[in-house]
Amino acid sequence: MASILRGNMLIAQSGGPSMVINQSLVGAVLEARKHKEIKGVYGSLHGIKGVLEEKMVDLRKESVATLEAVAATPSSALGSVRKKPTPGECVKIFGIMLKYNIRYFFYIGGNDSAETTHIINEDAKTVNYEFRCFHIPKTIDNDLLENDHTPGFGSAAKFVACAVMGDNLDNRALPGVKIDVVMGRHAGFLTAASALARVYPDDGPHLIYCPERPFSIKRFVADVKRVTDKLGRCVVVVSEGITDADGLPIASKFIRETDSHGNVQLSGSGALGDLLANEIKEQLKISRVRADTFGYLQRSFPSLVSEVDAREARAVGIKAVHCAVSGDTDGSIAIRRKPGIKYQVYLERVPLKNVAKETRSMPATFITKTGNDVTPAFLNYIRPIVGPLPEIGRLQRFKVSRIR
Amino acid sequence: MASILRGNMLIAQSGGPSMVINQSLVGAVLEARKHKEIKGVYGSLHGIKGVLEEKMVDLRKESVATLEAVAATPSSALGSVRKKPTPGECVKIFGIMLKYNIRYFFYIGGNDSAETTHIINEDAKTVNYEFRCFHIPKTIDNDLLENDHTPGFGSAAKFVACAVMGDNLDNRALPGVKIDVVMGRHAGFLTAASALARVYPDDGPHLIYCPERPFSIKRFVADVKRVTDKLGRCVVVVSEGITDADGLPIASKFIRETDSHGNVQLSGSGALGDLLANEIKEQLKISRVRADTFGYLQRSFPSLVSEVDAREARAVGIKAVHCAVSGDTDGSIAIRRKPGIKYQVYLERVPLKNVAKETRSMPATFITKTGNDVTPAFLNYIRPIVGPLPEIGRLQRFKVSRIR
Repeated sequence: MASILRGNMLIAQSGGPSMVINQSLVGAVLEARKHKEIKGVYGSLHGIKGVLEEKMVDLRKESVATLEAVAATPSSALGSVRKKPTPGECVKIFGIMLKYNIRYFFYIGGNDSAETTHIINEDAKTVNYEFRCFHIPKTIDNDLLENDHTPGFGSAAKFVACAVMGDNLDNRALPGVKIDVVMGRHAGFLTAASALARVYPDDGPHLIYCPERPFSIKRFVADVKRVTDKLGRCVVVVSEGITDADGLPIASKFIRETDSHGNVQLSGSGALGDLLANEIKEQLKISRVRADTFGYLQRSFPSLVSEVDAREARAVGIKAVHCAVSGDTDGSIAIRRKPGIKYQVYLERVPLKNVAKETRSMPATFITKTGNDVTPAFLNYIRPIVGPLPEIGRLQRFKVSRIR
Repeated sequence: MASILRGNMLIAQSGGPSMVINQSLVGAVLEARKHKEIKGVYGSLHGIKGVLEEKMVDLRKESVATLEAVAATPSSALGSVRKKPTPGECVKIFGIMLKYNIRYFFYIGGNDSAETTHIINEDAKTVNYEFRCFHIPKTIDNDLLENDHTPGFGSAAKFVACAVMGDNLDNRALPGVKIDVVMGRHAGFLTAASALARVYPDDGPHLIYCPERPFSIKRFVADVKRVTDKLGRCVVVVSEGITDADGLPIASKFIRETDSHGNVQLSGSGALGDLLANEIKEQLKISRVRADTFGYLQRSFPSLVSEVDAREARAVGIKAVHCAVSGDTDGSIAIRRKPGIKYQVYLERVPLKNVAKETRSMPATFITKTGNDVTPAFLNYIRPIVGPLPEIGRLQRFKVSRIR
């Protein structure tokens, strides 16, 4: 345990937005405002970019009413960035931190943001810069190590489940094959969440393809044929990140861009859905085949949060500040789930290096052996994180006897 | 006024689903169940397809609880169809109606469905088949003649407004150019509804392109440049149906171009957005350009209805039955708005032929002269139809003084 440290705090948001990332921000800010050792509560605009450019805002001056309205608003209120600091930039960052007497640093984001936090923290040691350095978890992909699940995931999963619920009803009304492409480069959690859309036995999604299993177009076409032969329709949910047996993204031929973390940008294009739809049209001679790519709506749609997700996002922000003022020098906050039937979680500080860079994917026990669906274990895992979903009514459809 | 007619009723749904089309169904069914002259209350599965195949269900047997749950559920509970009856099919339809003693016929749908209803009604006269024949309005496109607005539009508009609200926040966090493609081939109402997403002065959508005005890629690029030069970002909402000055769909250019390259065949879902995004990338050298196509989510997303829309959808169903049992022989129900500041509507029976053929588009007074935005008159028109939207919080961003 380090000694009590007095100075200013700096908090920032990084990576893709989520529907509850501002809960973490506001949780941390309101908690920080309670502690005397934290003097100024500053926010950096657009992550470390705002530090480097000295674009900071005073979060002590924001009213509680404003902060609470922001907490309930999706997307990163301080602005975001996708940027990994170079060694030269780290030197610059410490110069600026020293100038503004920043002794508490909190970075909200996914594994890339955890990596940035880790780099800054490790570099601080080499220059003997004394501060508290914390990563606060956020990612709709649910792929952070150490965590049972991550803030942002539950709400994005709720959006995907609702969207597929509606899409299944649409497909039932006007039968055909519908392909929905869901976010998640390497982890299939969000794609798998679509299984929550099922209410009645014949409800879609009828096929779910996660990136954890190699995707074969041949098997996909055979799967769709089997479902349409049986039900006369088929709703497919597929991850944007599916790859073939050689690990080549199915969508890769359409994509050119990468970010500074080396991630290929897969979102925002309808190419994968169109490719799969055309395969079905051509090979199965089904005329009504449609594809939708859910895109950014999954991570920023307002008024559709999972209550559990919002609460936990707030809690990790509070916890990070609590750890920092209690003398912990660094770390990331992880959500752990207690064993047992009743949903209970607790928060734990974990080393930054454990969360940085690497990611986790769906456990094998969450995907069926056939590779085109999820297991009951996955549904048990995800239900409490997403919470209640809209009620879906269905006519009993009592047949009128045929008159001969 | 015709004499009292006793017999069975048949109701069906047709065309694209909406979030409130089941309100109209349930409104009509519950109203019909009150009237003694209507004996059986039947529903045909998948529109007139179900009539031709004699696939009918008994809606008197459905519990009120089931019906109310169905009313609150998006998409057509009886199934839908896109089909115009041939003269031969009309003859067959009357044979089946006679066999089942159908004397009350209600068809819920858009202008194509109104045309089907009109055809059946006109053909009935030639064969002296006595029945009551009504069209009940539904379309998210809001393009039915005679109507101030149509059931289904308000909820779809709410979805689009919410989606663009979130997307604007996303774009503000991670600046760049974002293009959202919205449904509506010929009418721009739904695209225009995105203007409701604006809360703060710099909020997107910054540019809105409806299909009522010819789309020029050159002007579009110049518009985006002007906005990004000013704000450092730009959110564009564009109708899927935009055409060039010669009336050629912009989306079709992309398909041709791709075919001529002999690459992958693209049929559509993301094609228009991708084309526009590429133009911006190439001509303005902006690296972060993304496109999303909202797709079917706009018409079937659960739990996001406009309350006004749901209420009016229920009311048109009730009104149609009320007209039929009151002795009116045929017609469509239109929503009219009373003049004045306070939002008030009334329902009126109008001739089927008035709704059946043509569609309406955005009045010129709803689109700015620049052709890239909507007017305050449009906002006044649409606000009460959509109702309250999520509250969007924003930090005041009090600047921390720079230390030299």
